[in-house]
Amino acid sequence: MAEIGFIGLGNMGGPMAANLVKAGHSVTGFDVGDKALKAARDNGIKTVGSIAEAVAGVQTVITMLPAGQHVRDVYLGTDGGAPGVIASAPKQCLFVDCSTVDVASARAVEAAAREAGFAMLDAPVSGGVAGAAAGQLTFMVAGDEDAFDCAKALFDIMGKAAVHAGPAGNGQVAKACNNMILGISMLAISEAFNLAEQQGLEPQKLFEISSQASGSCWAMLNHNPVPGLVETAAANRDYEPGFAAGMMLKDLKLAQDAAMRAGCSTPLGSEAAALYAMFCNAGHAGKDYSAIYRMLRGETP
Amino acid sequence: MAEIGFIGLGNMGGPMAANLVKAGHSVTGFDVGDKALKAARDNGIKTVGSIAEAVAGVQTVITMLPAGQHVRDVYLGTDGGAPGVIASAPKQCLFVDCSTVDVASARAVEAAAREAGFAMLDAPVSGGVAGAAAGQLTFMVAGDEDAFDCAKALFDIMGKAAVHAGPAGNGQVAKACNNMILGISMLAISEAFNLAEQQGLEPQKLFEISSQASGSCWAMLNHNPVPGLVETAAANRDYEPGFAAGMMLKDLKLAQDAAMRAGCSTPLGSEAAALYAMFCNAGHAGKDYSAIYRMLRGETP
Amino acid sequence: MAEIGFIGLGNMGGPMAANLVKAGHSVTGFDVGDKALKAARDNGIKTVGSIAEAVAGVQTVITMLPAGQHVRDVYLGTDGGAPGVIASAPKQCLFVDCSTVDVASARAVEAAAREAGFAMLDAPVSGGVAGAAAGQLTFMVAGDEDAFDCAKALFDIMGKAAVHAGPAGNGQVAKACNNMILGISMLAISEAFNLAEQQGLEPQKLFEISSQASGSCWAMLNHNPVPGLVETAAANRDYEPGFAAGMMLKDLKLAQDAAMRAGCSTPLGSEAAALYAMFCNAGHAGKDYSAIYRMLRGETP
Amino acid sequence: MAEIGFIGLGNMGGPMAANLVKAGHSVTGFDVGDKALKAARDNGIKTVGSIAEAVAGVQTVITMLPAGQHVRDVYLGTDGGAPGVIASAPKQCLFVDCSTVDVASARAVEAAAREAGFAMLDAPVSGGVAGAAAGQLTFMVAGDEDAFDCAKALFDIMGKAAVHAGPAGNGQVAKACNNMILGISMLAISEAFNLAEQQGLEPQKLFEISSQASGSCWAMLNHNPVPGLVETAAANRDYEPGFAAGMMLKDLKLAQDAAMRAGCSTPLGSEAAALYAMFCNAGHAGKDYSAIYRMLRGETP
Repeated sequence: MAEIGFIGLGNMGGPMAANLVKAGHSVTGFDVGDKALKAARDNGIKTVGSIAEAVAGVQTVITMLPAGQHVRDVYLGTDGGAPGVIASAPKQCLFVDCSTVDVASARAVEAAAREAGFAMLDAPVSGGVAGAAAGQLTFMVAGDEDAFDCAKALFDIMGKAAVHAGPAGNGQVAKACNNMILGISMLAISEAFNLAEQQGLEPQKLFEISSQASGSCWAMLNHNPVPGLVETAAANRDYEPGFAAGMMLKDLKLAQDAAMRAGCSTPLGSEAAALYAMFCNAGHAGKDYSAIYRMLRGETP
Repeated sequence: MAEIGFIGLGNMGGPMAANLVKAGHSVTGFDVGDKALKAARDNGIKTVGSIAEAVAGVQTVITMLPAGQHVRDVYLGTDGGAPGVIASAPKQCLFVDCSTVDVASARAVEAAAREAGFAMLDAPVSGGVAGAAAGQLTFMVAGDEDAFDCAKALFDIMGKAAVHAGPAGNGQVAKACNNMILGISMLAISEAFNLAEQQGLEPQKLFEISSQASGSCWAMLNHNPVPGLVETAAANRDYEPGFAAGMMLKDLKLAQDAAMRAGCSTPLGSEAAALYAMFCNAGHAGKDYSAIYRMLRGETP
Repeated sequence: MAEIGFIGLGNMGGPMAANLVKAGHSVTGFDVGDKALKAARDNGIKTVGSIAEAVAGVQTVITMLPAGQHVRDVYLGTDGGAPGVIASAPKQCLFVDCSTVDVASARAVEAAAREAGFAMLDAPVSGGVAGAAAGQLTFMVAGDEDAFDCAKALFDIMGKAAVHAGPAGNGQVAKACNNMILGISMLAISEAFNLAEQQGLEPQKLFEISSQASGSCWAMLNHNPVPGLVETAAANRDYEPGFAAGMMLKDLKLAQDAAMRAGCSTPLGSEAAALYAMFCNAGHAGKDYSAIYRMLRGETP
Repeated sequence: MAEIGFIGLGNMGGPMAANLVKAGHSVTGFDVGDKALKAARDNGIKTVGSIAEAVAGVQTVITMLPAGQHVRDVYLGTDGGAPGVIASAPKQCLFVDCSTVDVASARAVEAAAREAGFAMLDAPVSGGVAGAAAGQLTFMVAGDEDAFDCAKALFDIMGKAAVHAGPAGNGQVAKACNNMILGISMLAISEAFNLAEQQGLEPQKLFEISSQASGSCWAMLNHNPVPGLVETAAANRDYEPGFAAGMMLKDLKLAQDAAMRAGCSTPLGSEAAALYAMFCNAGHAGKDYSAIYRMLRGETP
């Protein structure tokens, strides 16, 4: 069984680490939040008070953090602060960052790790809190192929699938691109189902037709924003997430950040980001991202 | 076998009428173009020189016309011009308009037909020229259910599926909504696959990941705009249509027309219409609609 | 003094007709609303019960109606209904339509009038209810130049300026284009002043800088959406119009209608229409159009 | 007369430094390009081979650099590279950064300078290469008021106006907000003038009407994209800049960067950035930003 250091034990990292413990691994964890630490201890994780202690003597470090700045701070350390993962980890240690962050941060931190002699994977996930708890995440992994092979057994515990997407940062690119399509799709079906209803076509009829036709998409079939069409959709439980609008906005902004750095034109991706920002600013970041359907209709989610 | 009057024998109507003849029906056809009439005769259609002659003595009139104004003119007649279908058709005749037109025109003409004692269906199709030739169209049908049952046998000859979408005009609503989603989806995947590539993620990798994930959509799987990903896609034959950009623009404009009449907000549908208008104005209306991928990249299709 | 028939005596038409009476003209008026008729009588307008009576014996007919369909009905008459202006007016009578309507309707009605031997001007106004009351409207006039010269004296009573914009329909084109720029400008400054404030730059400072720089525009200087910057702006009286959001949406939709008929790409005009539709659907059509600033901020106007 | 260190002697910085020399100041300059150094010497600037030499013994350091990363590198120095301005400048030296960069970089560098005991202003300019040569720039200045007063005399040599916009970074905020309005305005008038023309209204007529009406804006009056309307506009010299599209795109991206960090929704600003990105990707970054009018029309600039 492996020794694993796990940094970031929140809504996602907590259950991921717990699944590793359940599978027999020895996990040492660190988080800045007392509540997260307590929950981690309840799940068999050995908790410590610093990054250095968390990574001492481990073969693998896994991180699950909110944004690029945290990943930079945790790996590189902060000026005048505690040392980071790169300064503290034992030789040969493998780094696996499961955070969803901007491509530039992912690549910068990986370069610093490589420079210091470490292999590092970026491995953002899809599947949300429910997927983390159930060990049913999908990992979009990038970095050295040998490193991917080494980490594969851990991905298999925490998730149901792990795809290798190429050199460092590509995991983040894949997630940003996929979720940009998803956010646009949600707006597309929200607009279309609302238009149908306002023009006298029952949403159920449009669903029957389009789900079999060229307008079909994953969001329509799984996260349909119209109550009553897809049983498991958030629309049927008052738009409780599911996948929160605030998280969708975060992903759309990461896609915009990547697009601007690459000089890409993404007119609909840009517009989707602006609409989700408006929605979140109105106080609905905690609602499911499908609730934007109600904003388009002039309703309060 | 039925007597059928068929008006509009172009790229779509011609092969549809031919399939009815092949199935043993007697079809009398009218078109304003000599070339269409000649081709129709070659396919066993009896051609005549006026609407009145085309509908004399038939049980069913089928029309396949370019736009709402043509449907109004053909059914209602024109001031000081030849009489239209409503004035000329025998009692009990059933009208089936397969044109893709604005919802308002569809409903206005159906109301006039009903007023004059006729049942009328709007039954726009998807499947394109290839589907028309192969008898593999999908019909989105609206109007009286009894009329739908009567026409069902003919739909089965010309197509592979016919869905009833409710009262008059709803066939047009369904088609406009479905194709608005399709147009937005095409832009979404064009933006995402371009962004992926510019950020160093191979399109093939994004395809592997997203086609199994929450970003999946019909357009990605069937009409992928990146050459080399989907064998049958227009991208692999220099963007020869397939489904021409000019036709997608027509459908997006019909959706906008419906949205403005209904007072619906469709921010992405509006943007998609503007982008396809720019693409067509640049001289690319005859290219496949997936070629808009190249415009986003700053390339000439 | 001239004999004038005036049809449509609402918020705009009422005061316009009253100003003509004050200037010494004899005005016979018709409206479908009893309240409008009563107010008109109080202002010295002779009211009658039909279009035919309103235009009997007059030299000029002026109309001020809500939308294209009303203009068609009033001029062309309705099937089985009362005769319209064209059928009722005396020979040599000049028609002046001050309504803001779609270009296609304006041109269709003018063509019918010309066919019947009448000259007709389309002459939409800017200046709103306050401008109508004060005789300070601006007229964007199109049609025959001789007719424009004839009507000039009446425009001078009802307004402060009248510009001739070319052949029939161009008055509507000019108004739609001008107000499309205005609607986009309002969104531009709303986005910019909000961004400035959120980034720590006082709106007053941005106003000082941009009002003297390349970002300056009429909307910024006159209808600034930030309370406290422009004394007369609606923002300082709780966004009471002024120019209602519902009227801006109407104009943006007319611009979209014209753009789609002309095959023009208007990406920002389209987006502005979608955003104002969202704003109006949320119940704010009666607020000033500058209140969209609050929607962008996630606030309720 | 003052001793000034000037870093960045390109198209903008070169003539700015030359104007300081002409006014009698002693300027020591540094640039990474040999051509820029040679031109600087021709204009009486003393050129040196490092940042340290450029700032030795000066009272004021002025920088004019392409992007945030350069400003960071020049002030903070690079890892293992030459020392930066902060490490090299004499005590009491005032820093003035005239570059147009992202707000976050401007604020980060100012904080580092302040920490080291230096006052620093961010002072981006408008007016372009022509304004730099003519000493007619406008400075949007932010930072300590005393520092602003000290630098005022230099701004007066290099420009015609200098506005103080508040604490550090606000100069960048002001420029980004102003130019976002400008970019949106250019698209607005491009859409409107094109629509007018396609609907039969001469651009000259729309100009006469809107330049006096609520659609008026600085871009319409000064940079009108339609040839023949405004004599000095780039449209009349084949869209040679003027203000290059690539520079407008840079500013729109800076506005987007600021908006995303602040969580602001800027739907039209986002769309404008996407459209200018498409335009630049098509190879037109070197054309005037008003040439986007031609892209909307489907024409090649």
